[in-house]
Amino acid sequence: MSYVQQMIDTHPAPPAASQQLAACIQACVDCAQACTACADACLAEQSVADLVRCIRLNLDCADVCETTGRTLSRLTALDGAEVSQLVMACAESCRRCAEECERHAAMGMEHCRVCGEACRRCEEACRAFAGSLTA
Amino acid sequence: MSYVQQMIDTHPAPPAASQQLAACIQACVDCAQACTACADACLAEQSVADLVRCIRLNLDCADVCETTGRTLSRLTALDGAEVSQLVMACAESCRRCAEECERHAAMGMEHCRVCGEACRRCEEACRAFAGSLTA
Amino acid sequence: MSYVQQMIDTHPAPPAASQQLAACIQACVDCAQACTACADACLAEQSVADLVRCIRLNLDCADVCETTGRTLSRLTALDGAEVSQLVMACAESCRRCAEECERHAAMGMEHCRVCGEACRRCEEACRAFAGSLTA
Amino acid sequence: MSYVQQMIDTHPAPPAASQQLAACIQACVDCAQACTACADACLAEQSVADLVRCIRLNLDCADVCETTGRTLSRLTALDGAEVSQLVMACAESCRRCAEECERHAAMGMEHCRVCGEACRRCEEACRAFAGSLTA
Repeated sequence: MSYVQQMIDTHPAPPAASQQLAACIQACVDCAQACTACADACLAEQSVADLVRCIRLNLDCADVCETTGRTLSRLTALDGAEVSQLVMACAESCRRCAEECERHAAMGMEHCRVCGEACRRCEEACRAFAGSLTA
Repeated sequence: MSYVQQMIDTHPAPPAASQQLAACIQACVDCAQACTACADACLAEQSVADLVRCIRLNLDCADVCETTGRTLSRLTALDGAEVSQLVMACAESCRRCAEECERHAAMGMEHCRVCGEACRRCEEACRAFAGSLTA
Repeated sequence: MSYVQQMIDTHPAPPAASQQLAACIQACVDCAQACTACADACLAEQSVADLVRCIRLNLDCADVCETTGRTLSRLTALDGAEVSQLVMACAESCRRCAEECERHAAMGMEHCRVCGEACRRCEEACRAFAGSLTA
Repeated sequence: MSYVQQMIDTHPAPPAASQQLAACIQACVDCAQACTACADACLAEQSVADLVRCIRLNLDCADVCETTGRTLSRLTALDGAEVSQLVMACAESCRRCAEECERHAAMGMEHCRVCGEACRRCEEACRAFAGSLTA
């Protein structure tokens, strides 16, 4: 079992259905790392001048995912209505970054392909978790 | 002149009216630091058990302000519609944290009074900047 | 295969032996999340006043691990001598946090037990990676 | 008076001589923002391919400064010997970034000149604060 799920299970006030929460936290953490690595891989490409927008979106997405992952890791006084705005901003950031990465993946940039996958997984996890909050 | 304004002025593609942007970045950076410090000051209080919600909101607000300040510091391919969602989430986070801090400030917690001021200033700067994006 | 390893493998200038690097990045990312969650779990305990030092060390360790994981994810112009100082600071931060968590785990705090494991794993991964840099 | 100094002054357990601490926190926060902005300004330059190492060092320095500023903002259970390793790693990160920025400033990059100044100020503040810990 991942540390994320274990930390939720051992919290003194764990939420009722925690699988979507755990999946969302994990996806945020993974996506933040992939985006940080993709920004650097783009920087190392000879065609770096064509990748400026991708790097910019990677850096934004890394920061937003990290903040969302941290906020969702805090279960104390967690208020669904309050976090949904942040989670939806995170989903949008992932979508924008994924779209840009996918354009470069189609032209053979393998790090953009992997990063695009991480972004899409995080976008879906954020939308699923936000949906569970309002359900 | 602050480094924030100087960095905007020396950017190869500076925005037209940068004062509200500079003010918003500075307010985010200052608020993030104040919230980190307030969480710690609350931890050091004998009445820490009464300050749990304040600490939680401080930690969230610090993370959101830091990510917003970083995102707004990136002027390359800055898209107003895209950042406004994050800036409004930041304004809401500051408002929630300010309201909690002000409750404790009224009971004599001076660090909550100072932090509440930083949060209110950041909330206002975020709303003013978001307003300029849609104007 | 994890995103961390995939991102290294698709980088235009991947390092020669990347397993220790990938393990160290993953351990940093996992430990940062566990420490953020443990700080929050401690806050939710009735005995929060006894956990103040643990929360403080959790918050520090989360930040240092996050910065170390980000720095190691940037392979472009990566200089072994330059990063080893940061990696060793991270190992020390993990050791201190693990020792504190283990004290509380011995008294039944399950989240501190899980977090202490994440810290020990990260400490070891940092020492192994730093060792490979100077070998 | 800055929020940084006010937050120290209103902490329930403030340190004895806090001016060097406040200066170091403020320099870390300012330098982190300048480095984030400089990485982006470099990305927007036509000569981005010549600025890759500068961008990489900017991103590292932003993260290390942010973590150091956060850690020093936590006065509870602050242990001088324990933080000095991080503060010295921060000073080194600032020195490396300043040296790179100064090379580009000499060739007319004004954002690198401003960022180099922020890095040198932070390097000095870190060394002064670390010196006060061991005095």
